[in-house]
Amino acid sequence: MIKTLQLIEKSLERSIEELIEFVRIPSISAGANRDEPVEIEKAADFLVNQFTRSNFTADKIRMGASTNPIVIARGPQFSSNKPTVLFYGHYDVQGVDNPREAWLNDPFEGHMLDGQLIARGASDNKGPTFANVKAAELTLKSTNELPYNIVFVIEGEEECGSGALEAFIKGGGLNEYGPFICTVISDTSMYGPNQPSLTIGLRGISYMELTITGPSQDVHSGLFGGIIHNPNTVLIHALANLIDESGRITVPGFYDGIIDISDREKELYVSLSPDEDAYCRELGVSALRRSPDFTLLEQRWTRPTLDINYISGGSPRTVIPADAKGAISARLVPGQDPLRIENLLKDQIRKAIPAGTTLAFSKEHKSPAYFLTESHPLVQPALEAIRKGFNTEPILTREGGSIPIVTDIATYTQAPVLLVGFGQITDNWHGPNEKFSLEDFHRGMRTSAALLHELKQYTTSSPLKNGS
Amino acid sequence: MIKTLQLIEKSLERSIEELIEFVRIPSISAGANRDEPVEIEKAADFLVNQFTRSNFTADKIRMGASTNPIVIARGPQFSSNKPTVLFYGHYDVQGVDNPREAWLNDPFEGHMLDGQLIARGASDNKGPTFANVKAAELTLKSTNELPYNIVFVIEGEEECGSGALEAFIKGGGLNEYGPFICTVISDTSMYGPNQPSLTIGLRGISYMELTITGPSQDVHSGLFGGIIHNPNTVLIHALANLIDESGRITVPGFYDGIIDISDREKELYVSLSPDEDAYCRELGVSALRRSPDFTLLEQRWTRPTLDINYISGGSPRTVIPADAKGAISARLVPGQDPLRIENLLKDQIRKAIPAGTTLAFSKEHKSPAYFLTESHPLVQPALEAIRKGFNTEPILTREGGSIPIVTDIATYTQAPVLLVGFGQITDNWHGPNEKFSLEDFHRGMRTSAALLHELKQYTTSSPLKNGS
Repeated sequence: MIKTLQLIEKSLERSIEELIEFVRIPSISAGANRDEPVEIEKAADFLVNQFTRSNFTADKIRMGASTNPIVIARGPQFSSNKPTVLFYGHYDVQGVDNPREAWLNDPFEGHMLDGQLIARGASDNKGPTFANVKAAELTLKSTNELPYNIVFVIEGEEECGSGALEAFIKGGGLNEYGPFICTVISDTSMYGPNQPSLTIGLRGISYMELTITGPSQDVHSGLFGGIIHNPNTVLIHALANLIDESGRITVPGFYDGIIDISDREKELYVSLSPDEDAYCRELGVSALRRSPDFTLLEQRWTRPTLDINYISGGSPRTVIPADAKGAISARLVPGQDPLRIENLLKDQIRKAIPAGTTLAFSKEHKSPAYFLTESHPLVQPALEAIRKGFNTEPILTREGGSIPIVTDIATYTQAPVLLVGFGQITDNWHGPNEKFSLEDFHRGMRTSAALLHELKQYTTSSPLKNGS
Repeated sequence: MIKTLQLIEKSLERSIEELIEFVRIPSISAGANRDEPVEIEKAADFLVNQFTRSNFTADKIRMGASTNPIVIARGPQFSSNKPTVLFYGHYDVQGVDNPREAWLNDPFEGHMLDGQLIARGASDNKGPTFANVKAAELTLKSTNELPYNIVFVIEGEEECGSGALEAFIKGGGLNEYGPFICTVISDTSMYGPNQPSLTIGLRGISYMELTITGPSQDVHSGLFGGIIHNPNTVLIHALANLIDESGRITVPGFYDGIIDISDREKELYVSLSPDEDAYCRELGVSALRRSPDFTLLEQRWTRPTLDINYISGGSPRTVIPADAKGAISARLVPGQDPLRIENLLKDQIRKAIPAGTTLAFSKEHKSPAYFLTESHPLVQPALEAIRKGFNTEPILTREGGSIPIVTDIATYTQAPVLLVGFGQITDNWHGPNEKFSLEDFHRGMRTSAALLHELKQYTTSSPLKNGS
């Protein structure tokens, strides 16, 4: 372990140079200029070369002619007699059109400022993924044979739905690497700049789009107003029936079966005492929505939501529009089945549709919440690794977002997923001037190496199940 | 009278040629390619020349550097000792981009098909206005001195808000032509192809746009969902509070003061027995919205409405949007004060705005309903003129739309407005392949000439007041 950490220090400068080389590749898969095939390929090749130089066996897997390749790498001395520690990451990045003008430097220049690497993908997710890659490489270099295999799966479509990887996993692509001890993912954030955390929960999601159709074309609201149902009015009533003005979701059965969080977890989130004024400043609002029944972090991480993400209908003229469209998403928590929730939402919406208009749903997608109980045997080793990597006491947190591939991986590997984030919530993921602190990169490599060290003792037990 | 009608027959071919010349000028004031100054000017000049050739004194009045000219023409032998019959019309037309592809011919070619002139503006409003122009011209040619003045006001901004004309009227521009017997406007429709009508009522309007602002930019619904108010959700609740699912407006006081229609008028609208299936086919819906308390035409013409014309917020992704926008319009009926209604709507919307979001209103405009009682002394002469012009029995109707300039004119002239439409509701105003039947043009000229004949007996009485 000491030897590995020394190697990380010694090669730090070179690791940073390699990371800069990695972020300079504009491997955009979402937004403007997405899927420039040559750049996507270049990023995948960069990883293959990186792995090959470290004696990994690396391949680009293609699930279809128009999908981005998945990079799969297995460490030297891979053996089907050993269990596997799987690492997941993604090499694709968001576009830079949100908005482009706000970038102070070329997003693909690899600009350094005050110890921060400013670049698209620096924090989401090239930097954290590369910290894991370097930690594995240097661990293998400085350690005698490990009692487990190390396998990396790094996809190129995380920002646009992980379609190829989902097909790969569901098609049994991971079978040859199991059984699994765990999967390590560094695609979440730390709780704060000097407060590393193990993320034990992610909210799930149920998303759908809907269209209410009325007259065959926009019609004059003077000539026909009063005798024809207006799709905009039908839509707002259908959506208003889902949630009340206080934010409580009014769909019958929506809250059924939710697993309460422990008193201990409640207390933890109270003790973190987030600064509400800082939230308000960051969001640019004068007040937050406060639920009388839950504290702020409990609400944000452990309670389900319903958001109306999109509404569109008509034009600012005196028309009755031909149709109105909406998109809604519910964030789900442990105990909520996404298919059941989708059906409850649809049933409630259907009740508001009068004769003379029609309703169609589209683009539904859904994923359950992920949760790892605090008592899971891998939680303490993960915390110990973070403690060593950051030289500070880590905490347990959840996140409010959803990473559908996490639950897919947990299901198909039948092993827990350890969400160990190295970046900050303020790193501007998807926004302009995305950044990643070199200190976080350094501490990330240390944490990942420490985790590989801690996991040595878990290799003889049978595959560990996901805790929730 | 006979002489005038003979002259109309004799010069019919020439009148049609002139009308075709008129519709060939693309004097668009709304939509794409609007306000081509040269074309607007050409249409105004066409009218000035037309009037001058008939010995009218005609001018183009300019209210500002960027406004379209108003054509004002007064007949020969104009005298301030005589009262005036005012004619109003508009020479501007809608664009042809709604949609352009659907036009089977060039919208400004003046194509003839089966007795219909297919052209933008043919029915809205060049054809009906030109019928009045020709009727006045030929009446003057065939009649000894009339006991009243004939004055035409033909504006070029009806399709974009009548701003210049409103300023002209409110600034006293009509003062020199009063007192007025009445204003004749042919900018409404007949009840049906062989059912001419006098329109005794128009609904008023209260229109406004609103914006709900939340976070300073779109934010991630996973990271912040549950602790921040979503502008889309606030908007739909604010709008859902205005109207219930059955279409009843739930704003306290909205229905106060409405003047009930007479039993006779109710019976008339029942007796017209509109074909509901035809409505459904025309609108492309499977069913109409039916109020249990009102018959179809009563609902469409004499009851107030609230329509949500526009909603827009967010995008079909899992965001909480920075803002959400809407536009609403209420159609008003006699007894409803537009300013009072605007304030009621705003007050009700304000109630739904929680701390953490803000509300702004914009682009409010409003106008009261117009109504002429059946017992008004000019109603019978108007019906008699239509009877003579169309050789069939006319009926009294209302329309559901709003023509704000009508109430301005009625107020400033202190005289009734006679709404005598020559076109059909199926003439595709504002849509592709707008058309005007030459038979309607012919019958329109006859009706207008007959009306000038009927009005001769009303010149000695004092100015007649608007009935409502």
